[in-house]
Amino acid sequence: MSFDPTPRTRIRRVPKRAVYERETVEAILDEGLVCHLAFVHLGQPFCIPTIHARAGDTVYLHGSAASRMMRTLAAGAPACLTVTHVDGLVLARSAFHHSLNYRSAVVMGALRPVDEPEEKMAALEALTERLVPGRWPEIRWPNRKELKATSVLALPLDEASAKVRAGGPVDDDEDYALPVWAGVVPLTFEPGVPEPDERLAAGTPVPEHVTGWSPERRPGEPHRRAA
Amino acid sequence: MSFDPTPRTRIRRVPKRAVYERETVEAILDEGLVCHLAFVHLGQPFCIPTIHARAGDTVYLHGSAASRMMRTLAAGAPACLTVTHVDGLVLARSAFHHSLNYRSAVVMGALRPVDEPEEKMAALEALTERLVPGRWPEIRWPNRKELKATSVLALPLDEASAKVRAGGPVDDDEDYALPVWAGVVPLTFEPGVPEPDERLAAGTPVPEHVTGWSPERRPGEPHRRAA
Repeated sequence: MSFDPTPRTRIRRVPKRAVYERETVEAILDEGLVCHLAFVHLGQPFCIPTIHARAGDTVYLHGSAASRMMRTLAAGAPACLTVTHVDGLVLARSAFHHSLNYRSAVVMGALRPVDEPEEKMAALEALTERLVPGRWPEIRWPNRKELKATSVLALPLDEASAKVRAGGPVDDDEDYALPVWAGVVPLTFEPGVPEPDERLAAGTPVPEHVTGWSPERRPGEPHRRAA
Repeated sequence: MSFDPTPRTRIRRVPKRAVYERETVEAILDEGLVCHLAFVHLGQPFCIPTIHARAGDTVYLHGSAASRMMRTLAAGAPACLTVTHVDGLVLARSAFHHSLNYRSAVVMGALRPVDEPEEKMAALEALTERLVPGRWPEIRWPNRKELKATSVLALPLDEASAKVRAGGPVDDDEDYALPVWAGVVPLTFEPGVPEPDERLAAGTPVPEHVTGWSPERRPGEPHRRAA
């Protein structure tokens, strides 16, 4: 399964790095803890970091019901959602061929507000489970007041592309003779030791969903709810 | 020194997280390996990851002279440049109070093309030194052909703000009694073991600027050039 490139998702610069396979785009989105969302308000582009979660063919976002971003986007403004992972520094022999190894995915489209209660709760579950898979069954779920204060938006995942660079530096032929170290410094995003809240009750065990957290871990099965 | 908030940089949501001090904004920009740049092309917002480097009151970007982004931006289109660091997962007792610890900086403005040779070369030095401080003196610098193929743009750092969340979860009073582990999982961006290029000449030492790399390391002094 692949996305059909459109004029706004077709990669023009370095097209050999373009990837239109759905599986690649989804994996990049799913591993991202934050996306950056671009939208236009009164002619000015904004680029705002926010959390996102994919569920099937939909990417969900949430925010305060009072926010400028949420209100602008709920009205159907065109948006661009981008997730980027930096995987390594690429050190070449020439300045020109220095680069980063990275994976980025871009989704274009207009968002729709999610007001139907079951979809809204499922989206909030997906957003929580994206950050910390396994967390949702353990915590207090949103109540009516919290649901009212939270807006959820949905972006269809049907116009998207990815761009990926991997591997070592590629230098000009004549530069390989230079006495310069060249290669890749891999970069990873690592969890540290969990820091308990100062008001945590003594003896509360640290759950496996915390000690075993990694950016690649996938959410559990969603919970069924009464409609 | 602080930035004066403008209608487009004033933080409206959770204003207690807003920071307008120049030092904070600069530190967030300087630690970022990539920024996300939003601009509008034919009414559609784009959000593209790219590398950036600050030198004093200017943020430099570069790209292919042929790219849509560079041409749109060189023409003076309004832009929004955002750098985000994710510092930790904030696990509360309720879904509603889950959060991320993060630092983000947003710079608004219009870019100008950098064509003057000395400024252009200095910008390319800054971009290289941002990725790998200490690298520039060791490598082959851009030649005339490479300079021609590269566009450099400058964004003045005079309309900017930052947003920072740090610390543990803040739960509703009645939720502290719940038997739920709460706290923070710190996240850091870590370099791995350097991987030499397969065509590296045997015996080439790994320089200190590679073995000692960290995201917080600052560039060396810029090199002087003849005008």
